[in-house]
Amino acid sequence: MIAVDWGTSNLRAFRLDGGGAVIDRRESAEGITQVADGAFAATLRAVVGPWLADGETRVLMCGMIGSRQGWVEAPYLPCPADPAALAGALVAVPFDEAQVRLVPGLSARDADGTPEVMRGEETKLLALLQHMGGDGLVCLPGTHTKWVRLQGGRIAGFATCMSGETFGALRDGTILGRMMRHAGPVDPGGFDRGVARSGEGGHLLHHLFGVRTLGLFGELDEAESAGYLSGLLIGHEARAMAPRGAVVHLAGDEMLTGLYARAIGAAGAQVAMLDEDVAAQGLAIIGRAAGWL
Amino acid sequence: MIAVDWGTSNLRAFRLDGGGAVIDRRESAEGITQVADGAFAATLRAVVGPWLADGETRVLMCGMIGSRQGWVEAPYLPCPADPAALAGALVAVPFDEAQVRLVPGLSARDADGTPEVMRGEETKLLALLQHMGGDGLVCLPGTHTKWVRLQGGRIAGFATCMSGETFGALRDGTILGRMMRHAGPVDPGGFDRGVARSGEGGHLLHHLFGVRTLGLFGELDEAESAGYLSGLLIGHEARAMAPRGAVVHLAGDEMLTGLYARAIGAAGAQVAMLDEDVAAQGLAIIGRAAGWL
Repeated sequence: MIAVDWGTSNLRAFRLDGGGAVIDRRESAEGITQVADGAFAATLRAVVGPWLADGETRVLMCGMIGSRQGWVEAPYLPCPADPAALAGALVAVPFDEAQVRLVPGLSARDADGTPEVMRGEETKLLALLQHMGGDGLVCLPGTHTKWVRLQGGRIAGFATCMSGETFGALRDGTILGRMMRHAGPVDPGGFDRGVARSGEGGHLLHHLFGVRTLGLFGELDEAESAGYLSGLLIGHEARAMAPRGAVVHLAGDEMLTGLYARAIGAAGAQVAMLDEDVAAQGLAIIGRAAGWL
Repeated sequence: MIAVDWGTSNLRAFRLDGGGAVIDRRESAEGITQVADGAFAATLRAVVGPWLADGETRVLMCGMIGSRQGWVEAPYLPCPADPAALAGALVAVPFDEAQVRLVPGLSARDADGTPEVMRGEETKLLALLQHMGGDGLVCLPGTHTKWVRLQGGRIAGFATCMSGETFGALRDGTILGRMMRHAGPVDPGGFDRGVARSGEGGHLLHHLFGVRTLGLFGELDEAESAGYLSGLLIGHEARAMAPRGAVVHLAGDEMLTGLYARAIGAAGAQVAMLDEDVAAQGLAIIGRAAGWL
């Protein structure tokens, strides 16, 4: 079968053998926001056409391609969810040359009833679940970081923290950004100072103002400032989300997981790093549950 | 004497009699950001010239006019501070037709050593202090809300929360704003829902994502959405800053103090409203301590 991870900013396609191993791969910059006039079928054809011509008949897709802004909207499947539940909720997409199905995103409710959603992560999580033996706490850092409970081989529930997007909005839209040198990677010294500050008394909304006052008093320089803000936010997040003594399984890009690992360690939890490049594997697991492999 | 409250976006001038009572007033839209090429002397002359011609010889100013972006930078005076300390730290401004002095801003350090600053509020606080009998907790809501401890007739210390500016940055710079109708006043129903949510489990950085998910699930409509976000932020702030059972003295514009009063009440503290229009009175108190009245 063909596995496609089609997100906002890129598309990655994999040709899988009967055992789910990747035998060929293709990548495209045509994420869903780059596809004009809803030309999703033509885009897919351009990427996987050669494999279809070579005899493939089934395409399984995950990611934002199943969102309201994508090809067909796939409704969220409520947690808890396992491979069979996701395989049973695939959404068909009209396409002439092959059977095309979408993996739905997941929804959850927290203890107080507020809804949660993810789309794309559910597929990776099935692969991580297999690596972890079916139980554990996973953190997937990003613009909207997901903290996920895996239990008994299922995705039991999850919570999203907006630290990443909040960081960008505060840097670009408040007085705090004026103190910052924007370019370049996060300064690790500044980041660690922000993480340490997040463990002191006072609320995040108060700690934020320190980015400005420390700068005014010459106690935080421009190069450290963005890192300090990032450390404040991720530090607060880690202290709220990572139980002391627990193991947090981290998967994501190297820079971001590195930062989260420092903050989670400072919060008194342990970190286990997982390979993030598991979308093909997750799609293979769902494909197998759907009888496609 | 002449008292001038010169802020970022406007200038208010008062002519005071020997008892400190306002006998005349003038207002101008020429806040410090509207004054081109540092023409502060000419701007002041245009506003208070008639009073100078009529015999006034002393001008006492407070607000952002004493900041780095203003006329002359007045260094921050460390807390605790009382009228005598502020009067002793006035900064002279070169001006031909009268003696002109600037009230300095205040600085403080929190328990962990992080600096704090205010500029303009210190003058109002001296007047509020008099009304309150010298002790109490004051909240001055704004872009950067100040929570101030008054003790024994002095401004003992304070902390700033960035809820207001964070609200604007999140509304204008994140996906949350897409769910909002921006125009119009804050929806009280949405605000109260956000305040209630701020008391539930989970961190603010997680609660924020609920603005999006409740919208996606049709459980929060566009008209409520901005109010809900505001309630989340002010609710978290009030729960962190207003001790249960304490009395919080609120002063500021009617809309904002109304919102804070709801959030502070929900946090289990009591609210006492104070008149905010006390800049002239605060300047009179400092003028008296300086021997100008």
